[in-house]
Amino acid sequence: MTIRTPAPGSTGTGPGPRTLHLNAFLMNTGHHEASWRLPESDPYAHVDLAHYVALARTAERGTFDSLFLADGPQLWNTVAQRPAGALEPLTLLTALATATEHIGLIATASTSYNSPYNLARRFASLDIVSGGRAGWNIVTTAGAEAARNFGLDAEPAHAERYARAAEFVEVTRRLWDSWEDDTVVADKAAGVWGDDAKIHPARHEGTYFKVAGALNVPRSPQGYPLLVQAGSSADGKAFAARYAEAVFTAQQSLAGARAFYADLKRLTRRAGRDPELLKVLPGIVPVLGSTEAEARAAEQVLDEHIVPEHGRVRLENLLRLEPGTLHLDRELPADLPPESAVEGAKSRYTLVVELARGERLTVRQLIGRLGGGRGHLTFAGTPEQVADAIGTWFTEGAADGFNIMPAVLPSGLDAFVEHVVPLLRARGLLRSGYGPRQTLRERYGLPRPANQHLAPALSSALTTV
Amino acid sequence: MTIRTPAPGSTGTGPGPRTLHLNAFLMNTGHHEASWRLPESDPYAHVDLAHYVALARTAERGTFDSLFLADGPQLWNTVAQRPAGALEPLTLLTALATATEHIGLIATASTSYNSPYNLARRFASLDIVSGGRAGWNIVTTAGAEAARNFGLDAEPAHAERYARAAEFVEVTRRLWDSWEDDTVVADKAAGVWGDDAKIHPARHEGTYFKVAGALNVPRSPQGYPLLVQAGSSADGKAFAARYAEAVFTAQQSLAGARAFYADLKRLTRRAGRDPELLKVLPGIVPVLGSTEAEARAAEQVLDEHIVPEHGRVRLENLLRLEPGTLHLDRELPADLPPESAVEGAKSRYTLVVELARGERLTVRQLIGRLGGGRGHLTFAGTPEQVADAIGTWFTEGAADGFNIMPAVLPSGLDAFVEHVVPLLRARGLLRSGYGPRQTLRERYGLPRPANQHLAPALSSALTTV
Repeated sequence: MTIRTPAPGSTGTGPGPRTLHLNAFLMNTGHHEASWRLPESDPYAHVDLAHYVALARTAERGTFDSLFLADGPQLWNTVAQRPAGALEPLTLLTALATATEHIGLIATASTSYNSPYNLARRFASLDIVSGGRAGWNIVTTAGAEAARNFGLDAEPAHAERYARAAEFVEVTRRLWDSWEDDTVVADKAAGVWGDDAKIHPARHEGTYFKVAGALNVPRSPQGYPLLVQAGSSADGKAFAARYAEAVFTAQQSLAGARAFYADLKRLTRRAGRDPELLKVLPGIVPVLGSTEAEARAAEQVLDEHIVPEHGRVRLENLLRLEPGTLHLDRELPADLPPESAVEGAKSRYTLVVELARGERLTVRQLIGRLGGGRGHLTFAGTPEQVADAIGTWFTEGAADGFNIMPAVLPSGLDAFVEHVVPLLRARGLLRSGYGPRQTLRERYGLPRPANQHLAPALSSALTTV
Repeated sequence: MTIRTPAPGSTGTGPGPRTLHLNAFLMNTGHHEASWRLPESDPYAHVDLAHYVALARTAERGTFDSLFLADGPQLWNTVAQRPAGALEPLTLLTALATATEHIGLIATASTSYNSPYNLARRFASLDIVSGGRAGWNIVTTAGAEAARNFGLDAEPAHAERYARAAEFVEVTRRLWDSWEDDTVVADKAAGVWGDDAKIHPARHEGTYFKVAGALNVPRSPQGYPLLVQAGSSADGKAFAARYAEAVFTAQQSLAGARAFYADLKRLTRRAGRDPELLKVLPGIVPVLGSTEAEARAAEQVLDEHIVPEHGRVRLENLLRLEPGTLHLDRELPADLPPESAVEGAKSRYTLVVELARGERLTVRQLIGRLGGGRGHLTFAGTPEQVADAIGTWFTEGAADGFNIMPAVLPSGLDAFVEHVVPLLRARGLLRSGYGPRQTLRERYGLPRPANQHLAPALSSALTTV
């Protein structure tokens, strides 16, 4: 993988109001699929709270904006290949809330396999327990495996999943607005605890949901959790433009990332929202060395630990091919369906197919390229090189920050915080401390959402498409 | 309320293997509906994590077995009456898990308004994060208010709710058995993380649920959370006999509690289970004073803070009467329907009606009697008197322990731990410390459940009705 040389003058632009949003994407022993095989890796990290507490504290030392956990309500792949199973994200982030003070806590949760009432309660509760640090990565959950854990025989169509997701978010926002902020009057003498006129039942009857009542959790410090989205298909981008305040994306090149960034900001403007209020965070897998050669050697060691057969099976899954269709030393078959015909993870599908076709990779080579970051870009190099690349993407219209996906955990996050973070701070690209207590929304420069029952004009502007 | 004088010789039976199971039922400012009006009560306690952390640590100092949180997925009553809204129980207990070391964590969760896959994950995750301290109070959730938050127009029939609950528990047990304990082989050299032969998909197709896959959380320290139940209707008791390991119940008299206890143990035996493996825990509301008169005065102060109009509205709700039907200074109407015709909270309905009829109480008097513990018995007296009453119920076949429901929090729990707990310890009825690290199941003297995929004979014996 190439370390991009920054254009002259594009880094070190000095401290300004715009600084990086860094998110630590935590995943057991790391994002490289072979990370668990390294001698130092704990194969039981996936269920070890202490492992995650240490990671969270490291990220907080690095003044990251937030932690992030991916999720899907199914057991992925086979357990032979690599660590599988995990602590349920909202549970784990609640435990991490008590072990940290400032860092945001972003949990993935599915709109296809949850009820709005239950999920609204859980995010409001996490937001209260953490003092306003909750974020929700809104996913529609591709794949029949998940569907079959919830009474369905197949996954709902892609467009239907997104239609349900939009209604789901509308309902949860109504539920989060159930209580006005000053509902509790606490008049002990009169025996009046709250003002019933300030409670607003949801009274929602839509295509997918009927929810009558008010939420049984008061409005939380942030009003709503930070709303995050990570699908890059056409449906995904339209959804993000309408609802998201942060977008995670997988981009393989600066040019591609700039195009995605510009497109999403344009769509956001077209949806009637200020594009500044949506931050784009590409995922990157930093692999550090004290020299570039050392970093490349570390990457090489990891790649050599990939079992190609495992990658082949996963590729066949992603591309919806019969087992045994792919050959390690041949290119992808010519007759793959177009993205429009795929009902699953459309943007991941397209990214992988375009990567393979664009560079004429064999399946084995493609697996090597995907092993580190599952489609996210690997930056292997010295801390200076990685900081340069981050600065370039940030200043050249490709990113408002990054979803940092260390190849190996905890060592990769430790190294990033110890060696790259100080450089980013010295260049004025990253805060040096958290300062006074802020909610996650405040750190993102976002207003606390107005309660739709108080400010109907503003609220309808926010939801206009 | 009368303090029962213990029968001679029934307390002080000395240390033996059988000791009390004490559970601290936490609820914002306390179980007395007027507790929030006392000068020392914090009207914002319902969303204050620090309040709950302090309570949890107090209960742990008192070597309680567990903490317990009630729940229903709706906003109860009106917010004018008393504190409403709460932190979602599994979220709050996860936060409390990190603030405590030994105490069990029992969350209420509904089988009517959850998916087995989601709930199984959450309890397994809490069990892992807490080192084997999770418990699940299995409820079917009465009332149309909850139903209308989940797309239904009315609550499902009582029998149907229980049929669904039984299937729900069967599915979650299958999911908790998805992973054999030694699934992870962690063979780094060979690149094999887990043994796929030890993963068991649920493959469940029933009346209410279809769940195909394996859980995406490994088997937790306890295997299953402690299974708790609190319904005392015929359906509820049959369900408890089949599944429950602890039962919370509201009993107004020693005789009634003994009858309930004997009946439930008999039903458990008839269901093919060892009745020793089901513990019966009546709820009690201790109100302490250094003299009996002082305790009664404290109770009196609380009762005087009840707003009778609020109680009348709640009673009309419970009895499914039109608003305005009840008169404060008259008895209940003669033409109430029998329990068999009620689809809601059957056992609570019967308890209230029998209490009112049995003592010919006016509505106002009934509200006073229910204000403290909503149907649970208030023990007002000196620490010695309360310890005596506990000892009597425990040794005379009415209880295996108690669900302690302090009228006022935190002061009522503080007082119980400071003044009653030492007496119970001195009488050999309660442990003095937790000793070596135990799971909640171990503290209840329960075996870790065998994995049904390994021990088909035992597993089928456990589920035979």
